[in-house]
Amino acid sequence: MPLSYPNFKFEILKSSRQSNARLGKITTPHGDVLTPAFIFCATKAAIKGASPAQMKACDTQIQLANTYHLMINPGSDLVKRMGGLHKFMGWNGPLLTDSGGYQVFSLGYGSVSSEIKRKNLTPRQKSVCKISEEGVVFKSYLDGKLHKLTPEKSIEIQRDLGPDLVVVFDECTPYNVDKSYTENSLHLSHRWGVRSVNEFATHHTGVQALYGIIQGGVYPDLRCIAADFVNNQSFFGHAIGGSLGAEKEQMYDVVAFTVPLLNPSRPIHLLGIGGVRDIFSAVSHGIDTFDCVHPTRLARHGGALIRAIQNEDTTKEHLVLSHYRFKEDERPIDDTCTCECCRTYSRAYLRYLFSANELLAIQAVTLHNVTYMNRLMTAIRQAILDDRLEDEKKIWIHEEKEKTVQPKTKNTLIKSEMALV
Amino acid sequence: MPLSYPNFKFEILKSSRQSNARLGKITTPHGDVLTPAFIFCATKAAIKGASPAQMKACDTQIQLANTYHLMINPGSDLVKRMGGLHKFMGWNGPLLTDSGGYQVFSLGYGSVSSEIKRKNLTPRQKSVCKISEEGVVFKSYLDGKLHKLTPEKSIEIQRDLGPDLVVVFDECTPYNVDKSYTENSLHLSHRWGVRSVNEFATHHTGVQALYGIIQGGVYPDLRCIAADFVNNQSFFGHAIGGSLGAEKEQMYDVVAFTVPLLNPSRPIHLLGIGGVRDIFSAVSHGIDTFDCVHPTRLARHGGALIRAIQNEDTTKEHLVLSHYRFKEDERPIDDTCTCECCRTYSRAYLRYLFSANELLAIQAVTLHNVTYMNRLMTAIRQAILDDRLEDEKKIWIHEEKEKTVQPKTKNTLIKSEMALV
Repeated sequence: MPLSYPNFKFEILKSSRQSNARLGKITTPHGDVLTPAFIFCATKAAIKGASPAQMKACDTQIQLANTYHLMINPGSDLVKRMGGLHKFMGWNGPLLTDSGGYQVFSLGYGSVSSEIKRKNLTPRQKSVCKISEEGVVFKSYLDGKLHKLTPEKSIEIQRDLGPDLVVVFDECTPYNVDKSYTENSLHLSHRWGVRSVNEFATHHTGVQALYGIIQGGVYPDLRCIAADFVNNQSFFGHAIGGSLGAEKEQMYDVVAFTVPLLNPSRPIHLLGIGGVRDIFSAVSHGIDTFDCVHPTRLARHGGALIRAIQNEDTTKEHLVLSHYRFKEDERPIDDTCTCECCRTYSRAYLRYLFSANELLAIQAVTLHNVTYMNRLMTAIRQAILDDRLEDEKKIWIHEEKEKTVQPKTKNTLIKSEMALV
Repeated sequence: MPLSYPNFKFEILKSSRQSNARLGKITTPHGDVLTPAFIFCATKAAIKGASPAQMKACDTQIQLANTYHLMINPGSDLVKRMGGLHKFMGWNGPLLTDSGGYQVFSLGYGSVSSEIKRKNLTPRQKSVCKISEEGVVFKSYLDGKLHKLTPEKSIEIQRDLGPDLVVVFDECTPYNVDKSYTENSLHLSHRWGVRSVNEFATHHTGVQALYGIIQGGVYPDLRCIAADFVNNQSFFGHAIGGSLGAEKEQMYDVVAFTVPLLNPSRPIHLLGIGGVRDIFSAVSHGIDTFDCVHPTRLARHGGALIRAIQNEDTTKEHLVLSHYRFKEDERPIDDTCTCECCRTYSRAYLRYLFSANELLAIQAVTLHNVTYMNRLMTAIRQAILDDRLEDEKKIWIHEEKEKTVQPKTKNTLIKSEMALV
């Protein structure tokens, strides 16, 4: 019997006339999320540098936490006993957890981020990760202790954590494998997907909704098979995962190709992507939600997101606050921004704080970047409503330079916001 | 001609019938400070872990910044060009800077904190600090570059920084010197005090008020000479500095002896003291303001200040949040506290955040400890008004244990909140 989600809803409020972009609303037991939306990464059940109250004050709609980190510390059983993740971390809005798959496989292939984002690192520690039909055995990043994650276990952990949106357990296929590995991995993920659905259905009380993941790498025929699979399972939403190609253009192609294959009545999430240019492209192809550590991580390294129309540096989507040119710059990061950081501090002060390694710097720029991302998504939603997404884009990102053709080898290092994740 | 401070005022609103405690109000161009008050240390022009808006939300009245740190980075000239410290750091309330003396001498004697607080460390790097009649030459803690600080230079820097309250430059006499050194140092500080006053007077426009420092170590006759000196200079307020003895009891004696020597119409500050027990004692002897890094530093190390009536651990004035017993403690730090931390997080969550090295832990407990100190001072002011300071004290600190007599040697390590500074 297919699952139903009486406490959840996805409505499409408007479809763009210019592209496949759409304006929507996801309803959850903890509130609504207007889409396109950005989901902020409270990886270990906390945003690094911002409290729930501050996130709310920055107009944040939704956050996510990571199953992998939380199962190791403090453990999902403790979070459950403390009343669930919402209560534990003090965030009363919509909340998503991932399945743990993405992080688990980082132990199998060096850094999964590096793999998925196409950084070519020496494969290391492959032996610590044993993949079988049953699931994955991996070593804790904290103490090396062995943990096992199976589809059933991942869903159970996510049930204990208690977020609104949960995700099936899959093998996060790395980039540097051939098509046959990708295909076998796809089918394993589908068998795991079915087990995830079954485990989810057994305990379904209506307070959570399940997302299925579309794998298939850069291969159109595999993406078709994956799309068929998720469409035929009673998922609430879909998330596009796995390798998105060697370069930005290839990622855009994979997204453009995959989205139309998916059941349009379900929200579509693009996993781990948060660059402004990437968001504009993906939104135009029909993506509804995004997540990425980029905005908050960038903040901790002194990068302040800023719209193209305010940025003299046409090579970046942010200001590098440590730069000498800000030494006596009395302006806020963005004089049109109403965040606490821009209301309170000059670029000169922020530059100084980073030079002095003062903690306040991280909090300040995190609040700005979070506000920026929420303003961006609000502007994108308004632009979809007004059918002027392409015009809106010009405000936020610099026009692309004439492209230099790069060799499409597996060794290509992409210098982009994606490499920062 | 004596200096006048038309934009500043110190009023005594009530004198206690039980002790020398007094309720007062310091008026500055940036607002009033009800006394007794606690001054929070924004050492490098930022509270570590809390924004000006958050400090305000915690009912903070006044902050201080350190001349020593700011003259090295970013430099007082830059702060001046950026509109002064208030604007630079985004704090619009009353603000004090110290003279730099305290920190400068830390280069002369290992850590000045250790010296003043009577930790017996091996004297090191004595050579980096040259004291002459003119002033002090010292090496920057950042890059070893030589800097000179004289009374005139210190006042000039503080003028550029632009806080409301500024302090004369003195030699911060260490503990492990004999009376003759202390006496010579005292007279040097007085000559520097006169030069500080003259430099201050030359540029006095009414926006700053000057504090004189009372030295004299643990010697009553020297404290008398020092009190005479400061009373006869046209200072706005007085600050008790220098060595306060080898043990808590000796510090209380020095304070009790010194305060009655001072012009009672001026506010009296006790430098670098912030333990709750010490504050109650000093308030009862007539101290009006305190400063100390203790509450914010303790927070960064997972110590949450809590009233005795809520603390099972009678040996401490705080909870050690990393302790195992808080692992599943669903209570806030203090269920009578209205700070963001206590409204939002359980002890279990805070314990977890510290175990996971999450930045949010620092912010959360900093806000709590700041709120705690402001509540403490509010309660003390109310208790003075109601003539029940001794009763109020019992709510905040555990009764003192029967004293074990300790040998009064210079090697005595005091295990107390003072040692944490």
